[in-house]
Amino acid sequence: MKYKSFADMNCSLAQTLNIIGERWMLLILRDAFFGGKRFVHFEKNLGIAKNILTARLKLLIEEGIMEKQESHPGAHAEYVLTEKGLALQPILLSMTHWGDKYMPDVQGRRITFVERKTGQPIRQMSVVSKGGRVLAPREIMAVRGSGRNSPT
Amino acid sequence: MKYKSFADMNCSLAQTLNIIGERWMLLILRDAFFGGKRFVHFEKNLGIAKNILTARLKLLIEEGIMEKQESHPGAHAEYVLTEKGLALQPILLSMTHWGDKYMPDVQGRRITFVERKTGQPIRQMSVVSKGGRVLAPREIMAVRGSGRNSPT
Repeated sequence: MKYKSFADMNCSLAQTLNIIGERWMLLILRDAFFGGKRFVHFEKNLGIAKNILTARLKLLIEEGIMEKQESHPGAHAEYVLTEKGLALQPILLSMTHWGDKYMPDVQGRRITFVERKTGQPIRQMSVVSKGGRVLAPREIMAVRGSGRNSPT
Repeated sequence: MKYKSFADMNCSLAQTLNIIGERWMLLILRDAFFGGKRFVHFEKNLGIAKNILTARLKLLIEEGIMEKQESHPGAHAEYVLTEKGLALQPILLSMTHWGDKYMPDVQGRRITFVERKTGQPIRQMSVVSKGGRVLAPREIMAVRGSGRNSPT
């Protein structure tokens, strides 16, 4: 990695960025959420160089975000999201909703995410109070916990 | 930029990544959410090189995510989040919650975000149905809209 590592920053956001804070990573994950499983699929769909894709998939597997599966010996390997990988969905949807709002397509909404069972659009990704109220950015504050040893 | 641009990908996530899909960007934004306003603050707090910080702040301003303000002539410039910038909060909190869960600190929770008025922790960033139910990753699906012209 040519980047400064953020792994030593004692911050959950920095920890997350240390893994997925690279553009290709989130696009590979997006394709995986849309059902992409094979190396050639990611390669063609994203127009990503083989060596970069290989390195990114390796890291995703090492971090437990994806698993490599082979249905039978000699079959094409499939890359499948683990539970840890599936838990990234709120991040991807938050980014998608922000893009929908602030960088809209002139022809209208690109993709709408709906609840499979009802066909109803999901709610806008929002910060929500314990009581269920959508909170404005300045309505929240940070409280330091026991695991937070250095001020930032 | 040495990266391939994702601006031509007709996808809201790619549009978002085209701006904030770079590790320093989100850490600068994190510091701005925590009240950081000055060049020297970001520089010292993040350990980021001057030229990189300058380029990132320039892009954040060009994209309308931050504004440069000078309280009076000769005063230190302050970099302040716009409404478009503040709207990134769900992305940052989704990343923080994921890091809290999957890369916890051995000493306990690093930071808890609470509602300022009540002191109660905010809800976990989640995908929520129109009816208010937290949805599992596989309970949602994508529906193509009018602005979506190429299959992915």
